[in-house]
Amino acid sequence: MMAATPRPKTRIARHTNDKIFVRDADLVNDLIGKVSFTEMMFFQITGRRASPAQVALLDAVLVTLMEHGFTPSVIATRMVYISAPEALQSAVAAGLLGVGSTFVGTMENAAKLIDEILQASEGEETRAKAIATRFRETRQALPGFGHHLHKPDDPRSPRLIALVQEYKMPGHHIRALLTLSAQIDAVYGRHITINATGAIAAVLGEIGFPQEVMRGVAVVSRAAGLVGHILEEQREPAARFIWDMAEHEVPYEPARD
Amino acid sequence: MMAATPRPKTRIARHTNDKIFVRDADLVNDLIGKVSFTEMMFFQITGRRASPAQVALLDAVLVTLMEHGFTPSVIATRMVYISAPEALQSAVAAGLLGVGSTFVGTMENAAKLIDEILQASEGEETRAKAIATRFRETRQALPGFGHHLHKPDDPRSPRLIALVQEYKMPGHHIRALLTLSAQIDAVYGRHITINATGAIAAVLGEIGFPQEVMRGVAVVSRAAGLVGHILEEQREPAARFIWDMAEHEVPYEPARD
Amino acid sequence: MMAATPRPKTRIARHTNDKIFVRDADLVNDLIGKVSFTEMMFFQITGRRASPAQVALLDAVLVTLMEHGFTPSVIATRMVYISAPEALQSAVAAGLLGVGSTFVGTMENAAKLIDEILQASEGEETRAKAIATRFRETRQALPGFGHHLHKPDDPRSPRLIALVQEYKMPGHHIRALLTLSAQIDAVYGRHITINATGAIAAVLGEIGFPQEVMRGVAVVSRAAGLVGHILEEQREPAARFIWDMAEHEVPYEPARD
Amino acid sequence: MMAATPRPKTRIARHTNDKIFVRDADLVNDLIGKVSFTEMMFFQITGRRASPAQVALLDAVLVTLMEHGFTPSVIATRMVYISAPEALQSAVAAGLLGVGSTFVGTMENAAKLIDEILQASEGEETRAKAIATRFRETRQALPGFGHHLHKPDDPRSPRLIALVQEYKMPGHHIRALLTLSAQIDAVYGRHITINATGAIAAVLGEIGFPQEVMRGVAVVSRAAGLVGHILEEQREPAARFIWDMAEHEVPYEPARD
Repeated sequence: MMAATPRPKTRIARHTNDKIFVRDADLVNDLIGKVSFTEMMFFQITGRRASPAQVALLDAVLVTLMEHGFTPSVIATRMVYISAPEALQSAVAAGLLGVGSTFVGTMENAAKLIDEILQASEGEETRAKAIATRFRETRQALPGFGHHLHKPDDPRSPRLIALVQEYKMPGHHIRALLTLSAQIDAVYGRHITINATGAIAAVLGEIGFPQEVMRGVAVVSRAAGLVGHILEEQREPAARFIWDMAEHEVPYEPARD
Repeated sequence: MMAATPRPKTRIARHTNDKIFVRDADLVNDLIGKVSFTEMMFFQITGRRASPAQVALLDAVLVTLMEHGFTPSVIATRMVYISAPEALQSAVAAGLLGVGSTFVGTMENAAKLIDEILQASEGEETRAKAIATRFRETRQALPGFGHHLHKPDDPRSPRLIALVQEYKMPGHHIRALLTLSAQIDAVYGRHITINATGAIAAVLGEIGFPQEVMRGVAVVSRAAGLVGHILEEQREPAARFIWDMAEHEVPYEPARD
Repeated sequence: MMAATPRPKTRIARHTNDKIFVRDADLVNDLIGKVSFTEMMFFQITGRRASPAQVALLDAVLVTLMEHGFTPSVIATRMVYISAPEALQSAVAAGLLGVGSTFVGTMENAAKLIDEILQASEGEETRAKAIATRFRETRQALPGFGHHLHKPDDPRSPRLIALVQEYKMPGHHIRALLTLSAQIDAVYGRHITINATGAIAAVLGEIGFPQEVMRGVAVVSRAAGLVGHILEEQREPAARFIWDMAEHEVPYEPARD
Repeated sequence: MMAATPRPKTRIARHTNDKIFVRDADLVNDLIGKVSFTEMMFFQITGRRASPAQVALLDAVLVTLMEHGFTPSVIATRMVYISAPEALQSAVAAGLLGVGSTFVGTMENAAKLIDEILQASEGEETRAKAIATRFRETRQALPGFGHHLHKPDDPRSPRLIALVQEYKMPGHHIRALLTLSAQIDAVYGRHITINATGAIAAVLGEIGFPQEVMRGVAVVSRAAGLVGHILEEQREPAARFIWDMAEHEVPYEPARD
């Protein structure tokens, strides 16, 4: 009856009466107390043990993404929290629903540009120049480049790039990003900063984090940040104030006919 | 006009043109590349720098909670993922909505029992016995105790408790938990295991993690686990198979009158 | 192997190659084009066909709950919408997560008080007085009574109560609500309005809407309202303005030691 | 300071001490008890009063979409419900997160094809043929056409189309859909059914429902259906059974190297 859908398998976890396994590791004896959250996350997602450099760079990305002040995600989380304080997980989930195309989409699109450059048969510089020209001509926003606040340069990007070098990673993705950056400055005739999003796309490429779930890194890191905002909302409520401002400062105007 | 709601303040983050601060630390110079995700999470949420022991124990809890196989959360995530693959964050959020009272509530309630014992003026053992008696008489489930699968003992609990001792923490919360455990065995006349939930409540108490957002630790850890299931769903789809089973194995029955 | 969990049945829907049934009705021939959304909702949820009076009163409640201006739910929806405009359903879901205890909980708690009065063996008036006294002494908020803006009276409540009379419903729940209202005014020594929440609890009781999913009525109605806000956000963006206000008007303050 | 973001306005709602307005209507005197949910929904979203035909057709679409048995959305809702029964709104929200591209995306894409045909300067039939040819050559799935179960024809589509004629709507969108259907059958050399999604896209076009939020119709209708499943889950639990099946029937397989 169910012939249409073949029986799937899972390679993530299993348990017996006295053992729990994640991938091929014994949770109690091999993982708890022996690996950090970040090592566990890399292992659970990829099935591979991370090298110290991979752990350090994934940590760096997670640290970069955790907190950004009163973002739309934070506002959504605080609004839901005061409406349903009995369900902390709902407030976090509401904020995570904002980790969508507007912000994280640029990270994924930057990663795609980097891959495009790395795979270009005509040479990386030629392809980078073609990309810069293509975006300029179509007046599209450049994913991974530019920042409305941090000018001339986003301070997070050089730090992340330096870490890749410090940990002696191959650096192909960073090289592609820098090549693209140079061509963008040339084609646009002015300096446009590599933003955190662009640098993160390159760093996650360096450590072999699967591009299909790259957005998940932002989701996990932001989840922790949102928990911090819920604790602050309990102790120093801000949501009611923002709600009042919204009600008072967005006036009603009758429809025109 | 907005006098009714006093202006709140935030102590979490601020930024200038070339600097980003989280709490009182410079994100680029003090945090990225210098602290792990877990250190950053503790710092962002509590405003305090974690000691090495606090980091190790928070890591241990996060590692314990990340993965449990095909839980209701995982099933919800996979169902939403195949319905809206363009929005990975929605699939994670759907799974996190399942981090509610059934599972995490027991962790919070265990933490409350531990606090009740620690604050008892009549002595910890007396209070622990009273709690055990109260639950037995009202036939309520004991939060933090018992496991339908792991009998006689949940293997995660002794490991977590041993780590607290290894890191030479004061151990008050662990002591209260063990006192409660002994009284439960005496009052019920049989051994009931301390489950992972109970051990985690004690460990988070040891490291001073704020009880008001304790549920957030499970939310963050589980978020990472759900990302792993999304990647597996992409490569080895299971949701369609589960959906087919549900459709075929839950038969329709007309209403009785 | 699955003996532990007995096989469940469903009474909601089934389909064959050329027929779809909801409950015992043929979707195509008996429902589409023959019943309104509200009739269908009552039928799908309860398994019973609604009388014209039940439909009219459920419609009245749904109409009452749909729209309330820039509520926390609306703000959450708009924040998520600008962050993930590709996923309209996420924005609606984020807003619905705010349909929690703060607002809808009072509706459910009002329904419980009404039921308590209806089932009181000592007489409705005596029980109503006891309830009013209990809330006054414990200084708890009275579910279904009082409104910070609509004083002395919430204009929605008399309208909803009048409709129950107009449709010649038995009126037991309304009578219990009015009895409670009279006792509250007497015990508190001043008039406290029946708010929309209190009136809705009584109306839903009148039509036999299952109390276990009463919150669902607010969820459905609010979903429609949130869709309207998303369309307005597309045409007249407000979320960015509210975000800017939140960033600028909630200042950073260093932690005290 | 906030000069960058111009002050927005809202045309949806406002209130005074004793009045609540939605659009330009007095909620208490003009709407409650006078309009149905569906009329209110059309009015809140579009700002226009619906004609009787528009109401009837929007009702027909809402009725069509409410219930489909154990869909991925329903499974997600039931999984979250048993995990967090205290937060009914979370369970509904989880299910709604599944109203994404896989199902509703085809409705929106069908609506775009219909609009493309209606606006074609070269004639509707020519454009319909070109579309059918384009999809056949690129082997893409045809949005609004085909059904894995309902063969040769989806029974809902002729019913919805007949209603448009019954209510004497102009019928342009229906005509475009039927023209496309005829060309598809010709180009593919076999009959492919217009499915419910395709018919709904045309019906919503007929009543002038804004295409930008068309997905919202499915979200609202499905919300009601999910509430019905939560009530059934309370009375006849199925989630635990599905969870057990998933655990037992998806076996663990070690990773290959």
